[in-house]
Amino acid sequence: MAPKTKDRILATSLRLFNENGYDAVTTAKISEEVGISEGNLWYHFRTKRDLVSAHQLSLFVLIDKRLAIPSSPETVLENYALFNRMVFEEVWNYQYLYRDQAEYGRASPELEDRVHQIYEMTTNMVIRFFRHMIEAGHLDLPEDELAPLADNIWMVIRYWPSFLRETRRVVKLDKAALNAGIRHHFALFETHLTREARGYFDKNAYA
Amino acid sequence: MAPKTKDRILATSLRLFNENGYDAVTTAKISEEVGISEGNLWYHFRTKRDLVSAHQLSLFVLIDKRLAIPSSPETVLENYALFNRMVFEEVWNYQYLYRDQAEYGRASPELEDRVHQIYEMTTNMVIRFFRHMIEAGHLDLPEDELAPLADNIWMVIRYWPSFLRETRRVVKLDKAALNAGIRHHFALFETHLTREARGYFDKNAYA
Repeated sequence: MAPKTKDRILATSLRLFNENGYDAVTTAKISEEVGISEGNLWYHFRTKRDLVSAHQLSLFVLIDKRLAIPSSPETVLENYALFNRMVFEEVWNYQYLYRDQAEYGRASPELEDRVHQIYEMTTNMVIRFFRHMIEAGHLDLPEDELAPLADNIWMVIRYWPSFLRETRRVVKLDKAALNAGIRHHFALFETHLTREARGYFDKNAYA
Repeated sequence: MAPKTKDRILATSLRLFNENGYDAVTTAKISEEVGISEGNLWYHFRTKRDLVSAHQLSLFVLIDKRLAIPSSPETVLENYALFNRMVFEEVWNYQYLYRDQAEYGRASPELEDRVHQIYEMTTNMVIRFFRHMIEAGHLDLPEDELAPLADNIWMVIRYWPSFLRETRRVVKLDKAALNAGIRHHFALFETHLTREARGYFDKNAYA
């Protein structure tokens, strides 16, 4: 079954906003790329701002999924690899929501609180993963290094699309761009991993 | 001698843009904070966009200064500490120029090329510093780790103000915010430094 028009509008507008910036993409351009009339687009979404709300909802569903990834000392390597891939893809696929906030409008206090909460939960999750790696003997790192490491990890993940755009003019996500981000992120702590753990990530963490 | 009106306008508008965002700051607000009439402001700068150009010029002067910091294996620790402090302050003090580009207008191709060149020169400079640290025996790191490390360092420096704003709601630069950034940046490679080199940076790299 072909995807529904509504889903095609969402996917196409997301891609266009990510690649060209929210302000630069018109509803005429979106309709054209989807292959429908502007009237048909308006039937599904009254304004460009409605598309933002729909994208935010999808993003929050993804975030809830990856925040629910479990961890234990026994399963930490596979769960961390899964978490890491999901979060890189999530940030890349919804990059305009982070990047173009000034263009599509300042967020409500409720949304800001939610975003703030997501940052905190993500940081705590990363720290929990690292504690489990230490407990399982995969990682050798003192406790007071974990908080700055978690912040640095979030910075590399969160700003990877902006960094590639600004320094390398890369605007499309492909395997090479995603894997380079994962590589830069592992550079933050791989010298503290056992050879076995490093081998596991080399084999299983990349696209 | 009191600072000239023009300089006061530049300093005040820079602070207001950084803290509140380019779009949110009116010329009325700038005049009020400087304590002059809007007519007097217009006499010096016809539009808000003219302030952007003036800030860009000052930023480029700073960048040229820190790109000219020399390095040799003998002087690498003091020169790296100096470079590092300068670049953190530069990125923080001109943060709106990076952050609000969509608000004040897309850059010209010439400016984009210049910015791109600055990124490249900065990365090369950081790699050169690390090579000198290795040569002088301060740092133990294989050659193929240098490029991702230099990228990660630039990411922490470049996005530190955005990161603090988004995750901690910090909008003003004070010693604590600056030093926390420097600390996060050292966390990227300090375990590869000799104890002596680490001790040098602990004593000399912070504000």
